[in-house]
Amino acid sequence: MIILGIDPGLATLGYGVIDAQDGKNRLVQYGVLTTPKNVEIPFRLQAILRGMYQLMDIYQPEEVAFEELFFSKNITTGINVGMARGVALAAVADRTDQLFEYTPMQIKQAVTGYGKADKHQVQMMVKMLLNMQEIARPDDAADALAVAITHASCRRTGQLFRIH
Amino acid sequence: MIILGIDPGLATLGYGVIDAQDGKNRLVQYGVLTTPKNVEIPFRLQAILRGMYQLMDIYQPEEVAFEELFFSKNITTGINVGMARGVALAAVADRTDQLFEYTPMQIKQAVTGYGKADKHQVQMMVKMLLNMQEIARPDDAADALAVAITHASCRRTGQLFRIH
Repeated sequence: MIILGIDPGLATLGYGVIDAQDGKNRLVQYGVLTTPKNVEIPFRLQAILRGMYQLMDIYQPEEVAFEELFFSKNITTGINVGMARGVALAAVADRTDQLFEYTPMQIKQAVTGYGKADKHQVQMMVKMLLNMQEIARPDDAADALAVAITHASCRRTGQLFRIH
Repeated sequence: MIILGIDPGLATLGYGVIDAQDGKNRLVQYGVLTTPKNVEIPFRLQAILRGMYQLMDIYQPEEVAFEELFFSKNITTGINVGMARGVALAAVADRTDQLFEYTPMQIKQAVTGYGKADKHQVQMMVKMLLNMQEIARPDDAADALAVAITHASCRRTGQLFRIH
């Protein structure tokens, strides 16, 4: 089963694609969609919309997992992440009705076994679990792989978190 | 010139279409896109995306004006409005590069001449300025007409506010 993990953001949206079969996860692809700060926001959102449709069309994931939005102290960043997340959700919903989301703590718990693991521990476990040569870069792509792994793990235990 | 005004929201997105010619505004259409609360958020966002594309295709506005996002005390409402706004902006940016936004105070000032006018005063002025028989309902549609009128007025004075 192809699972797409998404770490939403306006400047950088991370994605990670894995194939989860028989309790094993195989890395398919990962990367980021980036939008330049000097472009007006509507066109950055448009680029995310198109990029998300491309990801959906290329990898045809059966299920898509998002890192849950948590509100930053910087309100402008929070609004921008919220807008980007909305666009990404709308594009995904156009292609599949299997959408899920996980909190940062759920992701840390699922990937490392410890809900307060630091970023580096999560990245090392992602590398190990997917038999990667190097830690995934940039961070947003590693985070997206972590949420995809989390979803695969939650599928096995039946503890799924649909986006309501 | 066809101007589309948008008052973004997840449950109710107001729209108002006017034709601004030679210093006069003619009412073309107004209404709301609504999404039911019992539907999962990604599908509500998808409905807004499709609805916005329909509005753009039906009315083919040359310029689109949004009421600026202001953050509500209710954080869930704020996130939802932000996501809906992001989707609406992305759809509009797919059809035109003429996007503008105005604060509630700018709208009140432009429509009534008084930046602290109340909702009813704004609605009465919208009715009068567009030669309507009745006040536009629901409120979100009236707000959308008000932002379209504001943009038409700002065009005349050259004080335009592009979305950055």
